[in-house]
Amino acid sequence: MPSRYLNFRSCVPWLILLLEALFLARSYFMVLTPDGRVSALKSYPEFQDVNHMVIFGFGFFLMVLRRYGFSSTGFNLLIIVLGVQCSVLVEDLRVFFFTQANEGLLRSIAKAVVSMTAVAISTGAVLGKTNLLQLIVMTLVELTAFCASRWINRAYMEVEDDLSLMHVHLFGAYFGLAVAFCLPEPSPGLDKNRSTPKSDLLSMLGCVFLWVFWPSLNSLLAQSRMKAVLNTYFALAVSAVTAFMLSALTTKDGKFRMTHIHSAVLAGGVTISFTAQAISHPWIAMILGLLGSVITVLGSHCLQRCLNHPLKIHDTLGVHFTFGLPAVLGALAQVVLLVIKQWTHSASVYSLDYLVLMHIGAFCQTISFALITGFITGFILNTKLLKIPPVSKYFEDQFYWEFPHLAVGF
Amino acid sequence: MPSRYLNFRSCVPWLILLLEALFLARSYFMVLTPDGRVSALKSYPEFQDVNHMVIFGFGFFLMVLRRYGFSSTGFNLLIIVLGVQCSVLVEDLRVFFFTQANEGLLRSIAKAVVSMTAVAISTGAVLGKTNLLQLIVMTLVELTAFCASRWINRAYMEVEDDLSLMHVHLFGAYFGLAVAFCLPEPSPGLDKNRSTPKSDLLSMLGCVFLWVFWPSLNSLLAQSRMKAVLNTYFALAVSAVTAFMLSALTTKDGKFRMTHIHSAVLAGGVTISFTAQAISHPWIAMILGLLGSVITVLGSHCLQRCLNHPLKIHDTLGVHFTFGLPAVLGALAQVVLLVIKQWTHSASVYSLDYLVLMHIGAFCQTISFALITGFITGFILNTKLLKIPPVSKYFEDQFYWEFPHLAVGF
Amino acid sequence: MPSRYLNFRSCVPWLILLLEALFLARSYFMVLTPDGRVSALKSYPEFQDVNHMVIFGFGFFLMVLRRYGFSSTGFNLLIIVLGVQCSVLVEDLRVFFFTQANEGLLRSIAKAVVSMTAVAISTGAVLGKTNLLQLIVMTLVELTAFCASRWINRAYMEVEDDLSLMHVHLFGAYFGLAVAFCLPEPSPGLDKNRSTPKSDLLSMLGCVFLWVFWPSLNSLLAQSRMKAVLNTYFALAVSAVTAFMLSALTTKDGKFRMTHIHSAVLAGGVTISFTAQAISHPWIAMILGLLGSVITVLGSHCLQRCLNHPLKIHDTLGVHFTFGLPAVLGALAQVVLLVIKQWTHSASVYSLDYLVLMHIGAFCQTISFALITGFITGFILNTKLLKIPPVSKYFEDQFYWEFPHLAVGF
Repeated sequence: MPSRYLNFRSCVPWLILLLEALFLARSYFMVLTPDGRVSALKSYPEFQDVNHMVIFGFGFFLMVLRRYGFSSTGFNLLIIVLGVQCSVLVEDLRVFFFTQANEGLLRSIAKAVVSMTAVAISTGAVLGKTNLLQLIVMTLVELTAFCASRWINRAYMEVEDDLSLMHVHLFGAYFGLAVAFCLPEPSPGLDKNRSTPKSDLLSMLGCVFLWVFWPSLNSLLAQSRMKAVLNTYFALAVSAVTAFMLSALTTKDGKFRMTHIHSAVLAGGVTISFTAQAISHPWIAMILGLLGSVITVLGSHCLQRCLNHPLKIHDTLGVHFTFGLPAVLGALAQVVLLVIKQWTHSASVYSLDYLVLMHIGAFCQTISFALITGFITGFILNTKLLKIPPVSKYFEDQFYWEFPHLAVGF
Repeated sequence: MPSRYLNFRSCVPWLILLLEALFLARSYFMVLTPDGRVSALKSYPEFQDVNHMVIFGFGFFLMVLRRYGFSSTGFNLLIIVLGVQCSVLVEDLRVFFFTQANEGLLRSIAKAVVSMTAVAISTGAVLGKTNLLQLIVMTLVELTAFCASRWINRAYMEVEDDLSLMHVHLFGAYFGLAVAFCLPEPSPGLDKNRSTPKSDLLSMLGCVFLWVFWPSLNSLLAQSRMKAVLNTYFALAVSAVTAFMLSALTTKDGKFRMTHIHSAVLAGGVTISFTAQAISHPWIAMILGLLGSVITVLGSHCLQRCLNHPLKIHDTLGVHFTFGLPAVLGALAQVVLLVIKQWTHSASVYSLDYLVLMHIGAFCQTISFALITGFITGFILNTKLLKIPPVSKYFEDQFYWEFPHLAVGF
Repeated sequence: MPSRYLNFRSCVPWLILLLEALFLARSYFMVLTPDGRVSALKSYPEFQDVNHMVIFGFGFFLMVLRRYGFSSTGFNLLIIVLGVQCSVLVEDLRVFFFTQANEGLLRSIAKAVVSMTAVAISTGAVLGKTNLLQLIVMTLVELTAFCASRWINRAYMEVEDDLSLMHVHLFGAYFGLAVAFCLPEPSPGLDKNRSTPKSDLLSMLGCVFLWVFWPSLNSLLAQSRMKAVLNTYFALAVSAVTAFMLSALTTKDGKFRMTHIHSAVLAGGVTISFTAQAISHPWIAMILGLLGSVITVLGSHCLQRCLNHPLKIHDTLGVHFTFGLPAVLGALAQVVLLVIKQWTHSASVYSLDYLVLMHIGAFCQTISFALITGFITGFILNTKLLKIPPVSKYFEDQFYWEFPHLAVGF
């Protein structure tokens, strides 16, 4: 093996060590005070739900490629753990520079874990096409960019803090797509980027796992938590049912396609994320779940033919239609619901135009910021410094892991 | 492929669409009030436990057939999600017509999820032998029938609301058996309805998962929840131990049989379900767990030889001895415990004869209602309208799902 | 098959029956009072977390051997369920003889489940080399020995009750090693005690599962629970990151080795277990997580070459470096932190020397008690009475389970 790949490997440990030293240095100034204890303890089961979902659930969900199971699960753990620490650090700096109130460490970690969903989604788009060095750089850049994007939204677009965090799916999907656009495309006809029935089955179990915990994710930081839970449950229920319906309608002989189920089942949860705590009538949540599922299944047909091929985007897990399109729909739905609410109640101090402008502004800002920083990150990842893996080594666990199994046969 | 199977497939999406339209129409009148929020929020972790168990756990547990993993997990999700919506609708109608107090949406969904256990159990009996159209029809009929049976029990047998829900295992098992009796038997000597070591292992993990969450299921709606949790835990513990003991005693050379473990480990939880909140002495719970496990293992030997073969019942997952017999035992134990309690205390306003009659009546009513509606459902499913799959396509994922894996080899 | 093995099998059911009869007899005197209900109910979700982790998580985690999946998961369930009942019995006797206050049944079961972690760890050391009879005897002896060791620590070393329970990793690892030392070594070059990529993947998922729930384990009985949760989370995060770093540094060409990740990811949680509720500065927890991971990876290199081979210890899952060394480090760290705290504050009524002596005494007592009782247990297990399995039947599911799959091919 040429020394170039050995070089990449020798970089990873030192980068990780450097990061850990940074996190350690900063944690030197952190003290666990007993005063915030009671309020924090109350939310421990909910925090645990989301932690369980992001680390175990996504590790399971990403396990779809036939020869990339070790890396999917292992790298997901590493990146989320690094990212949570990095995110807590960035949050600390924000508190330090802008002298805002500190909210307690558990809430801070909970927000960091929710932010990491963006990275887990972007990872889905570049799954198997980046080495670990690139993944770590991507994680750090993406987290900082997402934090900056949230800060802009809060400061100039008057988006509330917990709502700004719900842009996580939108940001993650378009950032990941922009990065995937910059990476070399895998050669067509490769069978390593396909799934086996076994890996599809495990990934389906991971998908069901995410489905079960999605209401906890949407309600973790919401102000009226019960509304968020119920609306998300209804939206998810309708989108699961619609996924099966549309999959049977769109395939040739009425069979179900696992990819459709895999992506459309979660669409409702993504679509409702912006509005879950505001909707008072469950039928609106159900309609949103239905539309989310429709846009995902149709998107998976159109995008793969019309958009991805000419633009040469290779989106391994299909995050564009799984998370991107439903999030766009959710953002538009938020504006429409706002307009309807203003018309019927008209009790706000702001004019309707102003509010609509702010919401659309926040949405456009998030997408464009994600795309721009994504392209920049993609170009950085493509430099020789980060030793991009050769296309022939894509989707291959053996490039990153020792396989003592091979010596004795499977 | 003849057009008859294409026809079945083209029906499924429209049936689902019709149902969803119905659920949407009804949810139009539903409003999320903020007043029920506090009481509902308290039970969210417990609701989440049961939701997790029924959707993820049963999806895992049913994955026992070698070529039916996709359908086991996928259809389980679809049916439970459809069923929960249908069950909330039926509950709404009941509240509307009988002008009873509404109890809050989360509690209503929780009850719907518990009711769906009946459908998940019946699915086990007909696993692999019905197409999706038949499964959906079965779900809708079974839910309505179970709701009617509960209503009769409450109105005429003076069974409390939360106890009437605990007939779910009894109803599910005998309904499923009656349906399975009406379906064409698979040809003997088929190897598709066997398990592989891999599928047995995953199914065993699902079984352990159900074992862990069973106390949450039994205590979700109980009035003295702690008693229900502890009694269920003790009963499950004893039945897990007894399962291993009896499996070694009943097999030829003292080895363990996975089917025994798989079914008898959960027997204690089923047996105790009627009495979990009433028993004050854990040793009674432990004895019930022991008897539940004994009846399951002995039942699995006798039933498969004496009853199923002459009656031509093909019970794929063995729900008769896994859920049916322990539930019968639990119902009888309830009567015995009642008699003993009356003898020692005799503080009730009703006479002993009357109470025993009521309990036995409720039990007989549930079983006979399940069997009758099950036979009717079986005959409906067997009509040409629902396009019963040919026996040669039983237990086959490829009849329902696209398998792009085949094109490139496993 | 010679009658000797049949004999072993015929013993297992009767031993289990005897034990169950004992548990039943003792539970006859147990009454579920309604007064302890409220306080107990509060901790149900946390109890459920730990129960879920020990039964489902360890069952998953131990599934690493290619032909030993059924036994890993099944026997883990059986042993934990037997052990919890035995542990509750021993606790009862203690309360009876020493007339101490009873703390409520749920707390008692929770402590029993935590104690069972010791047995699950010891099982890892002898995995595949003992028959079920030996495993059950080992469980009973180990639980009684651990209870005695805790009692000595509480009575003579002034260790608090909840801290004495945190010696569970230390005790489990060294007890398991001492037992493994006495058992016949498997023949080298055997391929049955290796893993397949599939079993490694499932075991990795189990490891991630344990990682997620470790904060619940460390905080279950702690007095300042929030501190314990946060410190454990930080320690685990750093040790997961360090595991990847060190694995890349220590292997030949910078690849990751699954064994390293598998064991070092959890090292932080073990190291912090003694001090999680006392540390006020997260950076100390992070340093401990880092050191725990370092000692695990280095230990896995040195021990396997220098110690295990000459001493002829065969440690199937590597519990010495996974749980033993980090626990030793944690115990030393506790003493160092105590000395530093005394120097800076010096507010204790005891002198520094006395406190240090007590802590080191408790630590030495636990290790030596574990080693001595482990050797004794090992010699008992090696007697003809318990029918030790022949070396050729090591790591073999088919020695314990029926395999109907073989008749029809996989």
